[in-house]
Amino acid sequence: MSATLTNKIEIIKATSSKINEVDFENLSFGAVFTDHLFECDYKNGEWQNPVIKPYKPFLLDPSAKVFHYGQAIFEGMKAYKDDQNAIWLFRPDENYKRFNNSAVRMAMPEVPEVIFMDGLNQLLDLDQAWVKPGAGNSMYIRPFMIATGDGVIANPSDDYKFMIILSPAKSYYSGEVKVLIAEHFSRAANGGIGAAKAAGNYAAQFYPTTLANKQGYQQVIWTDDATHTKLEEAGTMNVFFRINDTLLTAPVSERILDGITRKSLIEMAKKEGITVDVRPVLVSELVEAAQNGSLKEIFGAGTAAVVNPIIGFSYKEVYHELPKIENSFALQLKEKLTNIQHKLSEDTFGWTVKV
Amino acid sequence: MSATLTNKIEIIKATSSKINEVDFENLSFGAVFTDHLFECDYKNGEWQNPVIKPYKPFLLDPSAKVFHYGQAIFEGMKAYKDDQNAIWLFRPDENYKRFNNSAVRMAMPEVPEVIFMDGLNQLLDLDQAWVKPGAGNSMYIRPFMIATGDGVIANPSDDYKFMIILSPAKSYYSGEVKVLIAEHFSRAANGGIGAAKAAGNYAAQFYPTTLANKQGYQQVIWTDDATHTKLEEAGTMNVFFRINDTLLTAPVSERILDGITRKSLIEMAKKEGITVDVRPVLVSELVEAAQNGSLKEIFGAGTAAVVNPIIGFSYKEVYHELPKIENSFALQLKEKLTNIQHKLSEDTFGWTVKV
Repeated sequence: MSATLTNKIEIIKATSSKINEVDFENLSFGAVFTDHLFECDYKNGEWQNPVIKPYKPFLLDPSAKVFHYGQAIFEGMKAYKDDQNAIWLFRPDENYKRFNNSAVRMAMPEVPEVIFMDGLNQLLDLDQAWVKPGAGNSMYIRPFMIATGDGVIANPSDDYKFMIILSPAKSYYSGEVKVLIAEHFSRAANGGIGAAKAAGNYAAQFYPTTLANKQGYQQVIWTDDATHTKLEEAGTMNVFFRINDTLLTAPVSERILDGITRKSLIEMAKKEGITVDVRPVLVSELVEAAQNGSLKEIFGAGTAAVVNPIIGFSYKEVYHELPKIENSFALQLKEKLTNIQHKLSEDTFGWTVKV
Repeated sequence: MSATLTNKIEIIKATSSKINEVDFENLSFGAVFTDHLFECDYKNGEWQNPVIKPYKPFLLDPSAKVFHYGQAIFEGMKAYKDDQNAIWLFRPDENYKRFNNSAVRMAMPEVPEVIFMDGLNQLLDLDQAWVKPGAGNSMYIRPFMIATGDGVIANPSDDYKFMIILSPAKSYYSGEVKVLIAEHFSRAANGGIGAAKAAGNYAAQFYPTTLANKQGYQQVIWTDDATHTKLEEAGTMNVFFRINDTLLTAPVSERILDGITRKSLIEMAKKEGITVDVRPVLVSELVEAAQNGSLKEIFGAGTAAVVNPIIGFSYKEVYHELPKIENSFALQLKEKLTNIQHKLSEDTFGWTVKV
């Protein structure tokens, strides 16, 4: 990592740690934060005053643009501790690039690499006791940027705040996941912001997801908004379909997030000799494959969820349960990926980066 | 207005007023706020502690859901002072209904009418000196709601804050407005949140609008994302087209905001004997009408802008300038509407409501 900024980050340490209050065996995802956060403000056209300081609430004006016009983006990353107590990041350069792609699409300033990476590395170093080793344990990292400029006029803010907060994590989902294929509601428009990790993309999914939850489905698989015939993504995960022994997943586009777990799984699967077909996948294909028995697996892929097997889907009020399967691609790929992430097997891809 | 809650709103007055620091002749839209704001919090499934208090910044946790998942909605309303110093609202019931429609779509709790209306009325009463009489003067009202619950997990917040802030206003736009017809970028998806006044809808438009600004266009007229052949809205305004003596405007839909100025203008125009055709308007029709001279006017309609004449549009890199016109529908309707709003002419529609 570049160290140009290293000695410019002010560090204000917390007077005491909250770590002994935390039950690391029973963590609710995204609910507990470490002692410190990284913050850097954009004002007068410049990023300034990078600081690591105690995690605590901060002040915003009631007219701050993030509240009114939704200029807000984020990333989701994870760090892992190996059995030598070293901390490793997984493909942080990919998150950094995507963060700035999101920034451009939302008319927000790009964050310099040195601020993003040095802020992250120094924050993880300071709060390293919060990163627990062992399978299933990780540190979920949330870099985000919000518009802090004042004024209720609909144009881009002049001022922004970039922050990194850390939340120790176990796994994201629990229990069996059934999904609903979207027939009316949509996540993203052609020419819209679906490929950006923009805050507004998530709130837009809550109402239709709540409706799906009430019917007994944990997630929605979104379809293209124009025809609702193509399977896209699950909102917090990209989605893979295994038909016979071929893995299918939609190509990334301006409607579909370029998932880092997604692209890692594609590379890993290919290396394992699995045929991966990246192309638009039709809802009709999925239904047909479920009916003729060639649909073997569906799974989600994302930083928070890693790999999440899906046991069935509903479309047009018909529920299709997937067969139990031996030699699941999902579990096989998940094990290989988490072994790389936890440094339990050799990282032949060069994806892990030491903090 | 219902007064059920009246004596439950706590009022904490500012110790001094900022009003003498304000140059009311040179107001930048949405930049200056009055001495007080109204606030009500939603916790444990209930709206509680309605309070009017001094306008000032407030604290939020770095993990507040509004920052990460964009649960945020707002309304735009105006109040006017007549020459008897009475303050009038314009169709506040319509804003109230739309606010709660937005809340439902964004999986946020609806705000009870008594909280919305009593909060607004008492706030306007307390800060009445800030509402200036006379043509062009108004008080821009911004009710908004944000998700205040903590935690970086993508699901609806448990806690929310509803606020009303007031900003004295002159007119929104100045100068001649040229627009660009969107050919690639989009504002809303079928089955999306385009009909909601959700914060994320606005940030999504900033980047394409910035690109348009650089080409010399102040606004973008959005087209349907599936085909880019139908004219929809301008993001902060609905749009009307006058071809010969007929006014055309797109029907509201899940992609297009149900504008209150829009529906008021339609009613007024019809009463004036103008033919109003509410139907999908094609980009090709507009270009053809511009070429054959039957396109007489384009104008935007919205609370902030009221009625905003557009002098030309660009499509596929061809700029079409509109002819100068006498007896402009835009100016005629704007005058009639602002006269009703300012109580300078009789409100035969019953749209104005005294505070």
